[in-house]
Amino acid sequence: MFTNLEHLGLAVHDLPAATALYTTLLGQPPYKTEHVESEGVDTVFFRVGGSKIELLAGTTPDSAITKFLSKKPQGIHHVAFEVADIRAEMARLRAEGFVLLNEEPKYGADNKLVCFVHPKSAAGVLVELCQSISAPDHE
Amino acid sequence: MFTNLEHLGLAVHDLPAATALYTTLLGQPPYKTEHVESEGVDTVFFRVGGSKIELLAGTTPDSAITKFLSKKPQGIHHVAFEVADIRAEMARLRAEGFVLLNEEPKYGADNKLVCFVHPKSAAGVLVELCQSISAPDHE
Repeated sequence: MFTNLEHLGLAVHDLPAATALYTTLLGQPPYKTEHVESEGVDTVFFRVGGSKIELLAGTTPDSAITKFLSKKPQGIHHVAFEVADIRAEMARLRAEGFVLLNEEPKYGADNKLVCFVHPKSAAGVLVELCQSISAPDHE
Repeated sequence: MFTNLEHLGLAVHDLPAATALYTTLLGQPPYKTEHVESEGVDTVFFRVGGSKIELLAGTTPDSAITKFLSKKPQGIHHVAFEVADIRAEMARLRAEGFVLLNEEPKYGADNKLVCFVHPKSAAGVLVELCQSISAPDHE
């Protein structure tokens, strides 16, 4: 079950500039920043109601964000939905023919297990499923 | 004040096909469809937690969605934030240098007053401000 539009991920070239811009646009500062070594990204999070805006900048040439920005202008990169049971949702979607970009849930930013659905499976949208991990034992 | 990530708008070529796809992806059917004559769009809405996914297909050559899809692949078109006072937010953002795409709030889908912020002002993201209208007197 998809329980929340958890966050919208924006790929940006200049993280400090985009952070200043979104602080003004949203009328509030970010509540946290996080470097995700495994994904090669620096992230900045803002809260809007029960959802978040995540700004992402690539920190390595192999980062998905670096590759995205080498082909496309900056802007919306993905939409993430909170799910109650990520493994159950992955199995359900795989059975329905959706192409998943990782076979097992992986650790993402913000203390979550995540899985991405290929944009070709979702009308051009990179969809992330995420499930919060109660104990942050991987940090 | 931005109070909620109200909805994410997806531009699609084939509305029935995309509706079927998102019904499967989200695990639930849409809760409403709406034709917005003034914008030249047919829309289909799904609820996810406190947010919505809006599928949009153009119905006229002049529709913003038709024009978008003539230049770009289908996918995320805009993100809409609920605001408490759209005129106050428009004045605040204009004073901060953001470029607004309409000078006055206009009627949008789902019984709302809306205003769009130019993507060049928001790191490549087409941002919509929306304020619910309590009395649906324009319908």
